[in-house]
Amino acid sequence: MFEKDLSLTLLYDLYAPLLSQKKREVFEAYYLSDLSLSEISEETGTSRQAVRDLITRTAAELREWEQGLELLKKRNRLTALCDRLSFEVLERAEREAVIEEIREMI
Amino acid sequence: MFEKDLSLTLLYDLYAPLLSQKKREVFEAYYLSDLSLSEISEETGTSRQAVRDLITRTAAELREWEQGLELLKKRNRLTALCDRLSFEVLERAEREAVIEEIREMI
Repeated sequence: MFEKDLSLTLLYDLYAPLLSQKKREVFEAYYLSDLSLSEISEETGTSRQAVRDLITRTAAELREWEQGLELLKKRNRLTALCDRLSFEVLERAEREAVIEEIREMI
Repeated sequence: MFEKDLSLTLLYDLYAPLLSQKKREVFEAYYLSDLSLSEISEETGTSRQAVRDLITRTAAELREWEQGLELLKKRNRLTALCDRLSFEVLERAEREAVIEEIREMI
């Protein structure tokens, strides 16, 4: 059984530009178009095992990049901070603290 | 002549977690501690040519990651947007536009 971890699509959305063309194709076929390993194997002229390995390596890379750069974690935090600025009535000092945290985000 | 591109230190600041331990050591020795290739070679027990290659490959990786993720470009833009929120008197619509741009930044 080859587990499909859908949270990977969130990481893919952030880190796709770092992946090779081939890895992007196979990842999208499997995770976004929901093709089976066999279907992807046929479509790309790659063995089923090679497709599986490619997906496994892509998943490992995505997780490694997130561990290093934490862009998904930061995206979630940034959304929360922007919500505070947009929807809460903040005192001046609170507002400045939120803006300073945003400033240090990247 | 081996050119020292100091803008790389800005990229290093953002992408260092993606580099191997060895690459970080050599990059820091060369760019941050300003050691010569020969000094780094001696200190790490690596040939001068290998040190040079390592620095070249590290620089290429840093530039590649920036081309893909544009974190330095985004950092600069984020600073400008935070400055607007902090120091300018904005109308409600302008303020919302700035917050929306920040929200989409990562």
